[in-house]
Amino acid sequence: MMLQADICYCFTFILIILECTSYVLTTKGTTFFPDRNNRIDQEFCSANMLSSKGGKVLSSTAMRAVVVSKFGDESVLEVQRNVPIPTVESGEVMVKVAAIGVNPVETYIRSGNYKMLPKLPYVPGNDISGTIVAIGANVTMFKEGDRVASFMRVKSGAYAEYCAVHSDWLMPLPNDFDFRKGAAIGTPYFTAYKALFLKANAKANDVLLVHGASGGVGMAACQLAVSHGMKVFGTAGSKEGMDVVLQQGAERAFNHKEKGYTDKILEATNGHGPDIIIEMLSNVNLNRDLEIVAPKGRIVIVGCRGTIEMNPRLIMGKESRVEGVALAVTTKEEFSEMNRAISARVKTGSINPCIGKEFSLNDVQRAHREIISNSGSKGKMVLIV
Amino acid sequence: MMLQADICYCFTFILIILECTSYVLTTKGTTFFPDRNNRIDQEFCSANMLSSKGGKVLSSTAMRAVVVSKFGDESVLEVQRNVPIPTVESGEVMVKVAAIGVNPVETYIRSGNYKMLPKLPYVPGNDISGTIVAIGANVTMFKEGDRVASFMRVKSGAYAEYCAVHSDWLMPLPNDFDFRKGAAIGTPYFTAYKALFLKANAKANDVLLVHGASGGVGMAACQLAVSHGMKVFGTAGSKEGMDVVLQQGAERAFNHKEKGYTDKILEATNGHGPDIIIEMLSNVNLNRDLEIVAPKGRIVIVGCRGTIEMNPRLIMGKESRVEGVALAVTTKEEFSEMNRAISARVKTGSINPCIGKEFSLNDVQRAHREIISNSGSKGKMVLIV
Repeated sequence: MMLQADICYCFTFILIILECTSYVLTTKGTTFFPDRNNRIDQEFCSANMLSSKGGKVLSSTAMRAVVVSKFGDESVLEVQRNVPIPTVESGEVMVKVAAIGVNPVETYIRSGNYKMLPKLPYVPGNDISGTIVAIGANVTMFKEGDRVASFMRVKSGAYAEYCAVHSDWLMPLPNDFDFRKGAAIGTPYFTAYKALFLKANAKANDVLLVHGASGGVGMAACQLAVSHGMKVFGTAGSKEGMDVVLQQGAERAFNHKEKGYTDKILEATNGHGPDIIIEMLSNVNLNRDLEIVAPKGRIVIVGCRGTIEMNPRLIMGKESRVEGVALAVTTKEEFSEMNRAISARVKTGSINPCIGKEFSLNDVQRAHREIISNSGSKGKMVLIV
Repeated sequence: MMLQADICYCFTFILIILECTSYVLTTKGTTFFPDRNNRIDQEFCSANMLSSKGGKVLSSTAMRAVVVSKFGDESVLEVQRNVPIPTVESGEVMVKVAAIGVNPVETYIRSGNYKMLPKLPYVPGNDISGTIVAIGANVTMFKEGDRVASFMRVKSGAYAEYCAVHSDWLMPLPNDFDFRKGAAIGTPYFTAYKALFLKANAKANDVLLVHGASGGVGMAACQLAVSHGMKVFGTAGSKEGMDVVLQQGAERAFNHKEKGYTDKILEATNGHGPDIIIEMLSNVNLNRDLEIVAPKGRIVIVGCRGTIEMNPRLIMGKESRVEGVALAVTTKEEFSEMNRAISARVKTGSINPCIGKEFSLNDVQRAHREIISNSGSKGKMVLIV
């Protein structure tokens, strides 16, 4: 085993030396750094930055990244230019980040109102897309120049120019796939996939209600379910949002600000109720969900902003099930399963992330302000590096 | 098929004629009635009433049964002596009832405070044990004289001398198995089995907390889990109840009237929490259950008497699952699965229903008064016919 790993390591090392003389190997174990100045590259969406530049890239150990040194409002998001570039350990790759997906949960963590909080200071974010610019030892499934996305185990935080990621947690992206869309896959699609297939055991015959379907996870759930053959209903809070829901393939969209809209959903299922409900605002909707869900129905909680008074008897009579999804506790086996499933759907085009507002990394404070105001959410917010 | 069924039917008919001249075949299709006066037989727990009597039993179309003509307190339970004996249709058997299991849910239904209510008048109850005294056409798995228990699809109500039951929903009892115990299996053991194995996917490695473990379902859950190799904790509301819990094989018993008892449960699991919680009083305990349950834990709701304020976020972080059990919606396949599993455990003696208070059928009002007062519940209440 050890010998094999060493051979693999040497081979990788030789390839790097041959292909990219601009790299330096640090003396810290298996750590590689891209050898370039700390220059900000705005045209980074090309397939392979290093070769597209065609010239020598200077070595550097510092990068631009967003740093949070205390919890608070968006003003605590500080763009720093001398953040150490993370090291690449065995099994890891270095990704030069092209685009970053912004998720509401990142604002909860930043404000300090979240169950699991990182140690301060930290670099926020999980969802990135970009190009592999260096690989550590024992990485066999990826090579430099590969276009990838990641959203878990980004050990150094996503709001940055470079990220070190374990190769077990990488998703390959097709060559012609927009990096902005790549950054929009991770959290929303893996959350939606986990909710539908690993938790609710979604079948093509099931009727799905996505409660809050115009946001990132909501749209992903609609696309995954529609492309699986399911009948999908979605809710949104505006006409614009409802249009977005219909554009994802939902059969009908309902306005959850309208009185009695859940009666209409029941009617639309001929009184049977949805078999599965993906719930983004459980503190408001859970009890009513339990009333309208079909016998043996499954309610998957994806979002919650407080407590709710509910009647557990509703869960008994229909033998329904309420379960939660948290990507953070995803196992390697679960990730691998979802990664293959979602990558296949990216390839065939049966899922297609919808991009919402775009901000530069420097504009991160505005991005955080806007994502939480959340009015007529329509598409994934991304930061462009 | 038809021919085979007819042959079977004829064979059964001949057997009845030969073995028991006291039977008459009514002219109503496949209906058999035991030929006896409407005499109340208090020694009915013998293996086979008809042969044990050895004499002629007179024909009758009437029986003693408890009838509810309006919803209300226990005074609406009326013992009537001229209730028509139910007819036995194709696929059904007639059971001469020896003992009847009393369940709290029967008091909720009787009072009219239940979601699904029967049409008035009705005969309450579901759980019976007794001897088959007649079989309809197309019954191949059972014969007269078989000792059986049933608790579902007892089409005519269990609080009676005779019950017609479809043979798909019968459980065989060993010859030496006490009828009182037979009547104590149905609802509690099938509910507990369904909660543990069909809902919570219980594994031998799981730690189980039975919240309210000294009642019928609670004791059944303890026995089933212990005999599966699980580590079991149970709660009760008195010293006496806690002793009952320990007698079922639970490793530890906790007094749920004691302040901070859930902290002790957490400690007993080294902070990990129970993997599965069977919950008898979800309107009081659900939120705390969600706090103490282990990651990916399962909480199965078996009992509920109201609403509760809870935080759905607790379900998300640990990806736990809350699900309900209602025997009423059990499918034939589920019943068959559970029937085989529980029958096997009855045979080996690995489960052993604990009998609590006994009342005669005539004392049904007192039985209903006592089961709901519920102080220091310890064992299954039965009515002796």
